[in-house]
Amino acid sequence: MLDRADRLAVSVAETGLDSLLVTELTNVRYLTGFAGTNGACLIGPESRVFLTDFRYTERAAAEVEGWSIEIVSGEWLGGLAERLHGRVGIEDDHVTVRTAAKLKEAAPDTVELVEAGGSVEALRRVKDASEIERIAAAAELTDALYNESMERGLIGKTEAEVAAHVVARMREEGAEPSFPPIVASGPNGASPHAEPGPRVIGKGELVTMDMGALLDGYCSDCTRTFATGMLEEEASRIYEITLEANDRALAAVRAGAIASDVDAVARDIIKDAGYGENFGHGLGHGVGLEVHEGPRLGTRSEDVLAVGEVVTIEPGIYVSGLTGVRIEDLVVVGENGIDRNLSSISKALTYVE
Amino acid sequence: MLDRADRLAVSVAETGLDSLLVTELTNVRYLTGFAGTNGACLIGPESRVFLTDFRYTERAAAEVEGWSIEIVSGEWLGGLAERLHGRVGIEDDHVTVRTAAKLKEAAPDTVELVEAGGSVEALRRVKDASEIERIAAAAELTDALYNESMERGLIGKTEAEVAAHVVARMREEGAEPSFPPIVASGPNGASPHAEPGPRVIGKGELVTMDMGALLDGYCSDCTRTFATGMLEEEASRIYEITLEANDRALAAVRAGAIASDVDAVARDIIKDAGYGENFGHGLGHGVGLEVHEGPRLGTRSEDVLAVGEVVTIEPGIYVSGLTGVRIEDLVVVGENGIDRNLSSISKALTYVE
Repeated sequence: MLDRADRLAVSVAETGLDSLLVTELTNVRYLTGFAGTNGACLIGPESRVFLTDFRYTERAAAEVEGWSIEIVSGEWLGGLAERLHGRVGIEDDHVTVRTAAKLKEAAPDTVELVEAGGSVEALRRVKDASEIERIAAAAELTDALYNESMERGLIGKTEAEVAAHVVARMREEGAEPSFPPIVASGPNGASPHAEPGPRVIGKGELVTMDMGALLDGYCSDCTRTFATGMLEEEASRIYEITLEANDRALAAVRAGAIASDVDAVARDIIKDAGYGENFGHGLGHGVGLEVHEGPRLGTRSEDVLAVGEVVTIEPGIYVSGLTGVRIEDLVVVGENGIDRNLSSISKALTYVE
Repeated sequence: MLDRADRLAVSVAETGLDSLLVTELTNVRYLTGFAGTNGACLIGPESRVFLTDFRYTERAAAEVEGWSIEIVSGEWLGGLAERLHGRVGIEDDHVTVRTAAKLKEAAPDTVELVEAGGSVEALRRVKDASEIERIAAAAELTDALYNESMERGLIGKTEAEVAAHVVARMREEGAEPSFPPIVASGPNGASPHAEPGPRVIGKGELVTMDMGALLDGYCSDCTRTFATGMLEEEASRIYEITLEANDRALAAVRAGAIASDVDAVARDIIKDAGYGENFGHGLGHGVGLEVHEGPRLGTRSEDVLAVGEVVTIEPGIYVSGLTGVRIEDLVVVGENGIDRNLSSISKALTYVE
């Protein structure tokens, strides 16, 4: 993982910092491979120092390569602070006000703490081949559980039971849910963030399932909306519109595309069909070590897509009192389009008993 | 839960604040009952305002009583900031540097943000009767799983398998582990923070199990060390010393006791027996909505115990290369001693096959 540190060191130097103190644990893991619960990186043009405490002496030796490992004895923040010098970037989007104050107080007088949050997250947007394989494996597990859920059937089961089964099966397969699964049936589908509840899934309804796995450190994310029999006309209609929005947005994904433009492709289709007010969230987001990370695809996102980014494309239409649809794929951005679509479950309206 | 808000309002006024902005979600839940993923409280002498976003309109109405509910439309931090005035306390131990900067920028010019972290955590130390019942229920479940683990047996199983079984059973019972269970056998017991691994538990060893449940929002925490047959002399000896330290520290728990004094009771016994260097952590901690909360019981803790606090008493002896022992009870502090010991599993050295 040293290329990650090297790329970060370049951005540290470019922003006029002597070093960057990385304390957010997912970022620490990304840079070093360390998966314990206490660690930090201090990175400058020449230095690659990984810090942890005595509990993790052996773990750090086993997991961390290419970084000089230092064990902080005594008080943790004091141990970090005494190693700082010059202009030091901190992750201001993760470090608390109190921690920053303590660091400042314990550091040498000449140390200046500078807001530098987001540096590692920016690197994390582009995945390398091994990361893409791990995300693909998490997506494959999720798809297998979609197939299993369809085979088990939906009608007569509660939303909560369908969700609990998926969670239990993920755990049997050595994974965890990357977020609590959504199973929203009939009118409950009108809420994008519905929690699976005691409602019994009936016939002739739409059922939106949104789920992902966290496997071997990496996340997946996929949404499908199924039908449990013949639908009312409007339900069919919003399914077709959402599917077209998904398809057309997927066709707009490529390196160099501006995220808000891709969002607009889907949003305009939904708007033109008269449901502009019914798509109240962004089109998608990056997925990796976290299920929500950069880039953001939304109406105001200026992110520019790049080769190797892994993003969701998830338009939806939510009609209060009636029902809702969301169709979400997880794709790898390529030079001239999508390099891979990691979601394999059919998007043609599928009837599940 | 309005008495909680009333008590907090008193401390807000006493510290010279016009209001306190509570954004840490566990604290928000404690004050209002709201269990969603986005919410905040703004509390002053006269005002009790609970803020959330449109996703939680219905949930807030169902869960939050006695607070004026306001739905923030548009950008969340801007919505909070525009409601601030005067000297406003923020939870500086939870709020990030970036969030504080954004709040400051978006708030009226006359607003002064003041570090006021820990105010709600201080209230949370003392549990009311309903909280104690919920902690007791979580402890009861944990004890049932200790009994079940003893019946299933330990010898020939891996640490990881024993731990996984407990986790699966907790979930069957509608709980989650309050932290990843520890199962540390033989030499692995020498690390207080051992992770359950592939080691097969043998005969004539000590096995330390440390586990707790999160049930209905509240945590439990209990450690027992079992023997899988006749022990080496030193292993027996450190068990007896640890048990005496546990017993005597329990006898020192009462309202008004200084936490460091209670810690010293256990530590002195272990030190006098020649194992002073082998008890490298504090004696205990409060347990409630979180498995680690106030008060702290350690060598330097000036916390004074109070009636209704729920704390662990968990001395241990860890001998590198040999083995380790930890014995942990969860108790309710009473006026003249322990009001209730919520841990029911025997502490006499117990042989498990």
